[in-house]
Amino acid sequence: MADAGRDPGPAPAYREAGVDIAAADRIKRRIAELVAGTRGEEVVGGPGGFGGCFAIDRAPEADPVLVASTDGVGTKILVARAAGRHDTVGRDLVNHCVDDLLAQGARSLFFLDYLAAGRLEEETVLALVEGFARGCRENGIALLGGETAEMPDVYPPGGYDLAGFVVGIAPRARLERWGTARPRDAILGLRSSGLHTNGYTLARRIVLDTAGASLDDEVPWGGETWADALLAVHRTYGPAVGPLLDDPALRGAAHVTGGGFAGNLPRALAAGLGARIDRRAWEVPPIFRWLARAGGVDDDEMVRVFNMGIGFCLFVDRAEAGRIAADLAERGEPAVVIGEVVQGDGVAWT
Amino acid sequence: MADAGRDPGPAPAYREAGVDIAAADRIKRRIAELVAGTRGEEVVGGPGGFGGCFAIDRAPEADPVLVASTDGVGTKILVARAAGRHDTVGRDLVNHCVDDLLAQGARSLFFLDYLAAGRLEEETVLALVEGFARGCRENGIALLGGETAEMPDVYPPGGYDLAGFVVGIAPRARLERWGTARPRDAILGLRSSGLHTNGYTLARRIVLDTAGASLDDEVPWGGETWADALLAVHRTYGPAVGPLLDDPALRGAAHVTGGGFAGNLPRALAAGLGARIDRRAWEVPPIFRWLARAGGVDDDEMVRVFNMGIGFCLFVDRAEAGRIAADLAERGEPAVVIGEVVQGDGVAWT
Repeated sequence: MADAGRDPGPAPAYREAGVDIAAADRIKRRIAELVAGTRGEEVVGGPGGFGGCFAIDRAPEADPVLVASTDGVGTKILVARAAGRHDTVGRDLVNHCVDDLLAQGARSLFFLDYLAAGRLEEETVLALVEGFARGCRENGIALLGGETAEMPDVYPPGGYDLAGFVVGIAPRARLERWGTARPRDAILGLRSSGLHTNGYTLARRIVLDTAGASLDDEVPWGGETWADALLAVHRTYGPAVGPLLDDPALRGAAHVTGGGFAGNLPRALAAGLGARIDRRAWEVPPIFRWLARAGGVDDDEMVRVFNMGIGFCLFVDRAEAGRIAADLAERGEPAVVIGEVVQGDGVAWT
Repeated sequence: MADAGRDPGPAPAYREAGVDIAAADRIKRRIAELVAGTRGEEVVGGPGGFGGCFAIDRAPEADPVLVASTDGVGTKILVARAAGRHDTVGRDLVNHCVDDLLAQGARSLFFLDYLAAGRLEEETVLALVEGFARGCRENGIALLGGETAEMPDVYPPGGYDLAGFVVGIAPRARLERWGTARPRDAILGLRSSGLHTNGYTLARRIVLDTAGASLDDEVPWGGETWADALLAVHRTYGPAVGPLLDDPALRGAAHVTGGGFAGNLPRALAAGLGARIDRRAWEVPPIFRWLARAGGVDDDEMVRVFNMGIGFCLFVDRAEAGRIAADLAERGEPAVVIGEVVQGDGVAWT
């Protein structure tokens, strides 16, 4: 049977129309096992219902506000397809969603996936869902439901797309503190693991077309292949940042995702405020330097597309920045002051 | 700026790689207006954040349990594309999601959409989001966020896919009553408006290939075109059934969706119980009779794929079935007893 909230899928008559119901059943049994490994005691009821149920009556948050977000992994899935590695993009998606909620001041509770494919190839689907399940376990959240759709005329053979949905919770008082960063507040930057899930349309063009590289080739700076570098998993900042959410020195956060620094830092700031970033504050990883050079992309464009090595930013009282950074370092998360909040708008690079 | 939880989208460098940022900005402004029309006072904060925020501190449900589901509209989107009508599938998706939660005993709170396209064609995207917004207004829920992704190498020109995600709430006591239907309980059937969102792979084959019809042709039973018939909007049962959720005579419900009667009625019943349906209890609408005949699909297969004119079922104490049906009729929702719960499993047709 399906996991909670997962539709039972197409019926036998579909077989003639190109849908393999036996494979779908095998897939669903394995999915149910994977899902079971993510369910804590808040998950109410068994699999097979029309919706997944998650109890919040014992949630510690006062005046609770739900926070929800949805995302995809963009054209990173084309890299996964070309490389034949499907076990990482599910983790990318869970972590992307969890980081979005964290940037909003919320802890994630559960995740649901939508997976649509031209054909439900057993190994591919299971690798994808294994990624979702692993991502959920790593973040301590439930994989509460999902939909697996076989749509042979919408997606080409081997083609698929993923969407993720996450729901979290935050006390109202925290949300009122969020976004109260003021001029001279420090911006702490947390390192990314690579491109995360953004900039892949441009990066693929530069690597595969402009430079004519193959995913099996070693990257120019050595030590890994292009497939390794481009499929590096989007990091979750939940374990490092989660314990800080109620620290009064923390006044907001930004997830450096689609739109880069320029697109995302202003989302965390009140109108009339901007960010000044010191680009010498951290070493930009070689993949970004190479993409800029090989693609002839100027600095301003680079920071509007890519995370440049910083995947998450915290806005903190500058007097407390050292304490917060030490706290993060204790949890294995080195953080550096990469700039400050300023009057104005947008992001200035100095 | 984007609506809450909606990513700010691709940056200018993407333009060279096939992404039109100006069109994306226009689309986002209009989306923000559409979204605003769905936001009640529970929605916290403005647009542009990393997640949409929805307060539940004043929700009346005791011991609240969140219920969540995700779905797509399947290959109904191919009919929308072929007919050039994109304003109905968004409503289909919202209603499908709301009906799933209703079948689980929950009232919906908010919806998020994921919309991915080969190219963000302005008119198409706006028609789709207008559908989402209208569906949300009709159900009294918030369009809390979404993602609009332009993925030129994943979807063909003109191609797109949609995923919907809904979160609702139910008191724990109601969930404990849900699924307690027992033998001899009556099954009340509520009419569907057409195929809803299931069976389109098979229906398209029969209509377009086997019968060689065009979407502009009048249907054989007259009065509308195939495009009208195949794009009839998936009904929402929320307004009719919502007020009954705390009626003690109501012991469960089923949304007759992918998998038809055979796939969905057992999801609402305890192990060891099944359903006996009297197929003479209602008149099967002409579209299903025609599909069976034209496609040579036997009755058993028909009821595993299609809803046969009944989109939603309620499991009720038989002594109270008349009262419940009268109550539904008062809200403009005629309901008929179409069968009963029996010992055994699966769905028997008599």
